[in-house]
Amino acid sequence: MKRILVSVGDISGINLSILSKSAEKNKYIIFDLVSDKKTSEKICSELNIKLPANISIIQTKTKNLNVKAGFVSSDSSYLAFQALNQSFDIIKKDKNKYLGLITLPVNKNQINKIDKSFKGHTEYFAKKENSKVAMLLYSKKLAVVPLTTHIAIREVESLITYKLIKEQFRVVNDFYSRHIKKNAKFAILCINPHCSDNNLLGDSDEKIESIVKNLKKEFNVSSPLCSDSAFTENNLKEYDVFFGIYHDQVLIPFKMLSFNSGVNITCGLSFIRVSPDHGPAYDRVFSKEIDSGSMEECIRFLKKIEL
Amino acid sequence: MKRILVSVGDISGINLSILSKSAEKNKYIIFDLVSDKKTSEKICSELNIKLPANISIIQTKTKNLNVKAGFVSSDSSYLAFQALNQSFDIIKKDKNKYLGLITLPVNKNQINKIDKSFKGHTEYFAKKENSKVAMLLYSKKLAVVPLTTHIAIREVESLITYKLIKEQFRVVNDFYSRHIKKNAKFAILCINPHCSDNNLLGDSDEKIESIVKNLKKEFNVSSPLCSDSAFTENNLKEYDVFFGIYHDQVLIPFKMLSFNSGVNITCGLSFIRVSPDHGPAYDRVFSKEIDSGSMEECIRFLKKIEL
Repeated sequence: MKRILVSVGDISGINLSILSKSAEKNKYIIFDLVSDKKTSEKICSELNIKLPANISIIQTKTKNLNVKAGFVSSDSSYLAFQALNQSFDIIKKDKNKYLGLITLPVNKNQINKIDKSFKGHTEYFAKKENSKVAMLLYSKKLAVVPLTTHIAIREVESLITYKLIKEQFRVVNDFYSRHIKKNAKFAILCINPHCSDNNLLGDSDEKIESIVKNLKKEFNVSSPLCSDSAFTENNLKEYDVFFGIYHDQVLIPFKMLSFNSGVNITCGLSFIRVSPDHGPAYDRVFSKEIDSGSMEECIRFLKKIEL
Repeated sequence: MKRILVSVGDISGINLSILSKSAEKNKYIIFDLVSDKKTSEKICSELNIKLPANISIIQTKTKNLNVKAGFVSSDSSYLAFQALNQSFDIIKKDKNKYLGLITLPVNKNQINKIDKSFKGHTEYFAKKENSKVAMLLYSKKLAVVPLTTHIAIREVESLITYKLIKEQFRVVNDFYSRHIKKNAKFAILCINPHCSDNNLLGDSDEKIESIVKNLKKEFNVSSPLCSDSAFTENNLKEYDVFFGIYHDQVLIPFKMLSFNSGVNITCGLSFIRVSPDHGPAYDRVFSKEIDSGSMEECIRFLKKIEL
């Protein structure tokens, strides 16, 4: 049987609900869930759900946790962080045992209180493996990469360099050729409105254009597209991946077109890491209609790709 | 007969084609086109089109222009700027004669060579009338206002103040109550990814939140929404206008949902000014299938609103 490793994330959110629903629909996969057994049982009982038999818990190094479904707590983030650390160790050691690692959503702000350097899963794994990574958001309709991720927009411009763009192109290009068996066609966006209107807003878009011109020798990439008119039907058909200069430039269109069907992938690691593209959603924990669509897309993606 | 004033914009683009197509479909409106007669005839002959009888040209103070369809030139932008200045004078003098002014697309970069302070129509009219204005992008599916417009993204944060947000809310709120007869429901977006993840990216989103909290006493406005998940179907139904902190934050979703059906409106002027939401599109001048959808929406909007 195929196995998927799962880090529990913030257990007081919708995580166990979406995992349980998706595991029910994927009975021929075993889900090794890195979590605290007692706490998982407590939350399941609060939520009135039962983990299906194809979920097997790998115990975290945690005890006496004080966690309640629907409530933010330092203990639930402590568990999330422990589970994340252990999941990393497990998949590094036993890479071939798993299709990949699914990291369930966490509360970044709470984990940041435990580890000041924590900015998100993508940055965490990059640091752990000391690798150049790229955050690829993937769905049937659209795939995007934000060249900068969780960064204030005032800082974006100073981070965009030849080195960064080249690295991100290389990492994503390698991921496509290795795991999706495709010579990917890239689009890249401009930074400022209307591509800076021919330098009316400064020369940063001219710089990006000249970087991209250079990289055309190595990659199949468009000239920088004006971002507000980039996501036309024609372009969506034409390009495999849209590289945005900053997070919301590509995350806005991505979530509009791929609501609850998007997969967050870290390219450039020695293993495959994916995640649903939403947060722990504490406010929907007791809802009767929890949407596990994004989680199911993660599983579908792991089943489809080549290791 | 109802009349609409039209400034010709960049005559070497698709402007005369979209005007001519739309005027054909609106025979009971007279279009007073501010342009150069000879040049208009020359371009029409190059494009093999004929202006319908309900277009009447108001001669600009220009002569001996050297302009060719499909080509950027300083003369076509000189004409565009002259037409714009004269259109402003005409509508100021004869406001009640017209449903409003439609400004056809210009080449900002070329006009900027004539007048260094020119950044776009919106800024032009704001300066001319010494008014606080707002740029409202309007379609059946979605209406948006970028709180900052043609500005490099590195500069956006420093421009967002209580005064600015309050002014923009007031201008748009007044426009809705006066011309659309509606008590508008506003949504506003955060500036940074994930609303700065609880100050992980600095306190700028906290500042916006506290500004908005204050303005709730006066306006019907949401708490700041995380921008990447703001444009859900529910939210699109719930809110009349989405205020973005910067241009592409709202222009990307707007163009995705309202491609060639958007109207660009300047709220806050003493007259109604609208414009199609695209450029002169030189490259499509000789195409047989020029889409006049956005221009037709402008006319539909002017026919619908209350003066």
